[in-house]
Amino acid sequence: MANQYAHLSEVFYALADPTRRAIVGVLGRGPASVSALAAPFAMALPSFMKHLCVLERSGVIRSNKVGRVRTCELRPKTLSRAEQWIAEQRAVWEARTDRMSAFAERLHQEDLSRDKRKHRQP
Amino acid sequence: MANQYAHLSEVFYALADPTRRAIVGVLGRGPASVSALAAPFAMALPSFMKHLCVLERSGVIRSNKVGRVRTCELRPKTLSRAEQWIAEQRAVWEARTDRMSAFAERLHQEDLSRDKRKHRQP
Repeated sequence: MANQYAHLSEVFYALADPTRRAIVGVLGRGPASVSALAAPFAMALPSFMKHLCVLERSGVIRSNKVGRVRTCELRPKTLSRAEQWIAEQRAVWEARTDRMSAFAERLHQEDLSRDKRKHRQP
Repeated sequence: MANQYAHLSEVFYALADPTRRAIVGVLGRGPASVSALAAPFAMALPSFMKHLCVLERSGVIRSNKVGRVRTCELRPKTLSRAEQWIAEQRAVWEARTDRMSAFAERLHQEDLSRDKRKHRQP
């Protein structure tokens, strides 16, 4: 994929649907044929295929056809990239929170020192 | 107001856009006013506000208006929930991969034992 950011958009969009997240959940347990995947969903096959297409276009899954059977499998590296992006944003936020806490603690210690000096004065 | 327990579909949809992800990146460094957030984006304010609405509806950010200034801040717990969902899917996949590897190793050891027995026979 030429644009890494565009790619993440497709991955998050693919995960923004409960049916597609359920498919990801099933494929986590191992590859499955399209018909086996579709069976538990009360959905017409063309609609189900559209969900698979969105997942495959995003790189969250890949599929392979042997004879008349198309088998899908998860691509965990794609999920890892999305997970990593979120983790990075949290890390920036947490680093800032840590700096804020350290700064608040420094102010508190400075206040305590000032109070002590005041009490020492006659 | 954004719901703290916003659905995962809304969270992933909110992250499925490069402008909204850029806003998340900026807010990771600390709260910011809408006007400060909008300044670097070559976008009309109403379009930018729509992006903020999507983020706030999903619970990824929250905003607060004091006087005429609306300030936005990140809600890292919402990001954590999305991150955790992805991590859980990967964990299921990795547990399966580990079991597959263990099973393949067992088959390999059984083959070796069988070969040894064959060689011992006259």
